[in-house]
Amino acid sequence: MRFPRPHTLSEIADLIGARYDGPAEFPITGMNEIHVVEPGDIVFVDHPKYYDKALSSKATVILINKEVACPEGKALLLSDDPFRDFNALTMHFRPFRQAAAAIAPTAKIGSGTSLGPQVVVGEHAVIGKDCVIHPNAVIGAHCVLGDRVVVQSGTIVGSDAFYYKKRPDGYDRLRSGGRVVLEDDVELGALCTIDRGVTGDTTIGKGSKLDNQVHVGHDTVIGKDCLIASQTGIAGCVVIEDQVTLWGQVGVTSAITIGKGAIVLAQTGISKSLQGGKTYFGSPVEEARERLKELAAVRQLPSLMQQLKKQ
Amino acid sequence: MRFPRPHTLSEIADLIGARYDGPAEFPITGMNEIHVVEPGDIVFVDHPKYYDKALSSKATVILINKEVACPEGKALLLSDDPFRDFNALTMHFRPFRQAAAAIAPTAKIGSGTSLGPQVVVGEHAVIGKDCVIHPNAVIGAHCVLGDRVVVQSGTIVGSDAFYYKKRPDGYDRLRSGGRVVLEDDVELGALCTIDRGVTGDTTIGKGSKLDNQVHVGHDTVIGKDCLIASQTGIAGCVVIEDQVTLWGQVGVTSAITIGKGAIVLAQTGISKSLQGGKTYFGSPVEEARERLKELAAVRQLPSLMQQLKKQ
Amino acid sequence: MRFPRPHTLSEIADLIGARYDGPAEFPITGMNEIHVVEPGDIVFVDHPKYYDKALSSKATVILINKEVACPEGKALLLSDDPFRDFNALTMHFRPFRQAAAAIAPTAKIGSGTSLGPQVVVGEHAVIGKDCVIHPNAVIGAHCVLGDRVVVQSGTIVGSDAFYYKKRPDGYDRLRSGGRVVLEDDVELGALCTIDRGVTGDTTIGKGSKLDNQVHVGHDTVIGKDCLIASQTGIAGCVVIEDQVTLWGQVGVTSAITIGKGAIVLAQTGISKSLQGGKTYFGSPVEEARERLKELAAVRQLPSLMQQLKKQ
Repeated sequence: MRFPRPHTLSEIADLIGARYDGPAEFPITGMNEIHVVEPGDIVFVDHPKYYDKALSSKATVILINKEVACPEGKALLLSDDPFRDFNALTMHFRPFRQAAAAIAPTAKIGSGTSLGPQVVVGEHAVIGKDCVIHPNAVIGAHCVLGDRVVVQSGTIVGSDAFYYKKRPDGYDRLRSGGRVVLEDDVELGALCTIDRGVTGDTTIGKGSKLDNQVHVGHDTVIGKDCLIASQTGIAGCVVIEDQVTLWGQVGVTSAITIGKGAIVLAQTGISKSLQGGKTYFGSPVEEARERLKELAAVRQLPSLMQQLKKQ
Repeated sequence: MRFPRPHTLSEIADLIGARYDGPAEFPITGMNEIHVVEPGDIVFVDHPKYYDKALSSKATVILINKEVACPEGKALLLSDDPFRDFNALTMHFRPFRQAAAAIAPTAKIGSGTSLGPQVVVGEHAVIGKDCVIHPNAVIGAHCVLGDRVVVQSGTIVGSDAFYYKKRPDGYDRLRSGGRVVLEDDVELGALCTIDRGVTGDTTIGKGSKLDNQVHVGHDTVIGKDCLIASQTGIAGCVVIEDQVTLWGQVGVTSAITIGKGAIVLAQTGISKSLQGGKTYFGSPVEEARERLKELAAVRQLPSLMQQLKKQ
Repeated sequence: MRFPRPHTLSEIADLIGARYDGPAEFPITGMNEIHVVEPGDIVFVDHPKYYDKALSSKATVILINKEVACPEGKALLLSDDPFRDFNALTMHFRPFRQAAAAIAPTAKIGSGTSLGPQVVVGEHAVIGKDCVIHPNAVIGAHCVLGDRVVVQSGTIVGSDAFYYKKRPDGYDRLRSGGRVVLEDDVELGALCTIDRGVTGDTTIGKGSKLDNQVHVGHDTVIGKDCLIASQTGIAGCVVIEDQVTLWGQVGVTSAITIGKGAIVLAQTGISKSLQGGKTYFGSPVEEARERLKELAAVRQLPSLMQQLKKQ
């Protein structure tokens, strides 16, 4: 998330009541998750396992719950609860406001675009030209749609991330202040859910087509010209490269990469990153030809066991 | 379902044109399914296989299609078609009425709660304080939401049960007159469906969080602080104890129990009750470590078969 | 799709700028996909693999991209891009119009039928008597519902087909101009998606019942008195005969047939046609008893491998 204007380290520290280590005037231009941070961004980290990753990331400001040496050219925000304070920043810069109107007056809608009955378009959403948004679809606040985008009925663009921290008194939600970006010629089926980024973007690349009832998690990036069939579920922070095909009811775990041109057969459970250009099948996933060999062998297994018992 | 006031056995018998066995003034306070009945309730049974279970349940009035000895302290309603007459009672005490307004005038909505555009709230629904109901969500008649409950866009709370009796001329629906109860701090993702109880409650316990596109069947009880990931489907009459985690695309068959703290990996098919405190995987389900051993063995099976053929 | 009136071969050729082979006055009454064409219909074919199938189908007019001998009693429309020209015909005879009103003035709604708040009913849709359409459901243009049909909240009847042709510059959608036909006593759960036929009908037969979050693809035909449980996904061009039961989260690939009375257990992946009267399980599908034998054998496999290593 870009801030509307750059802020200084001391301004941000004041906002959340944190101490800081670095020049008071150190510039901060936004905030983001670790896998998509850029210089000028704040990233947060609250687990020793990820301290090094956060400190050596591209983020120039690290919101952290430990006194550490400040990396050269960076700054620290010191907090007893970085998760809480990251949420506080999200809510400060992008406060949740319940939509007051079905079509927010601050939304921008391009020429030639048609909206069906009871479509909801949230504040500051931007929809390009010649799009078709079918009845009862919801385009959430701040989401961005390119030109010729189709969103079929009832689809939700910009639901909140399913991302919780376990606290002694229950689960605490990481607030979602990011966006969904649907590039030109993206087409979504009916009753899909596309979660917004936590502070970054969930992106679906130019020309990709999703069937009905597909779920895409927060901060996931889908490339160009992908085909994703019905009832497939993709978790958060996934990277799907261009021209990938996922058939129906595939599941994809979080934070993995599926290489360019991969083809994944129906009901596969993708539990790890996959190289491009190959065909996959199974739960958990394997190369399809390996999996099919195994299945052929399994079919012979009962009679093999009978034979072995006789020996 | 509690009746608005207690009725006598003879009153209820008159309503459905049934004979009765027991004191005419025997008090009846409600009706329910067999697994959640309480004293004062009517339960129905129309299959010899379940006669004993119904007669010895906590229900004090049994709507039955056979002349049997009336258990001590109980009463019988004798009907040639208990299913039809149970439906007649549901429709009498909680008749279906199509919503006349998006927000029913009889609904109670707590302070600090915000409703998005085109939210539907049915008759006699109760929503607590500081809830957020996102656009296009539907909160059905008589459903009850605690405080700080979040329902994301397009989610349906209080759909009717998928429960049919096969008749010579087709499937006959068991009418749904029960409720959904979402306790404090429950959060539901976008495009979930939570079926109401047939006459009882479908309950999601305090602090539990559901991701997008989750389905929960009628009369299911989910405990506190559970996490249920996207596209998981839970059938009716399931008991999920506290702190259970179900990952994505898990399926749960009806009328089983998942013990406290169980963790179930993605795409698992839960076909039987599971002990708490363990991790599970596979379709059908097994303990994850057993299933992973089997998968490792299966991967070696094609080459093993080659070797055995050479011998 | 039936045309509003019969057209001549030369009229249609003019519409799409195609040459033709056959009598100028040759009558054309409609257009359809190859598996459901009838005499009087146009079918299109653009791949050598399917030329013979299209030419010998029941269609009497073949829109084709090759000079071939015209079959006796038929006619040809010659085009460099039959897919584009088939789309042009669909858009001519059934142009997409964004709904201008929630309930189209041209829709016909039978007596005793109730529509919930924010239901959308498209142009020329026909809904029979005594139906209940719950809140936020969408009944698309031209769709036809019989009597006593139930559509629960948020369900989309008449979404567009997921059917694309790969072009050098991206995926090109086959336009959907067909219908959904729900026969008498069909009941759909909440948040289902039923795609319309491309030019033909997607049909659900009398008395069939679908649970929540079920997906049915374009041009699929489901028979009478079928039961389809939650989160099952059925691709396009499938034939499901009468009295078939599909349990939860089943997936069905396109263009296959499931025989009468088949029972398919939860999470099964149906990758081929199935004979009726049997019970199936597994991904990919097998007869349930075979699959269960294999699963029992697989459970013994790790210890078998241990033993073999010791020998």
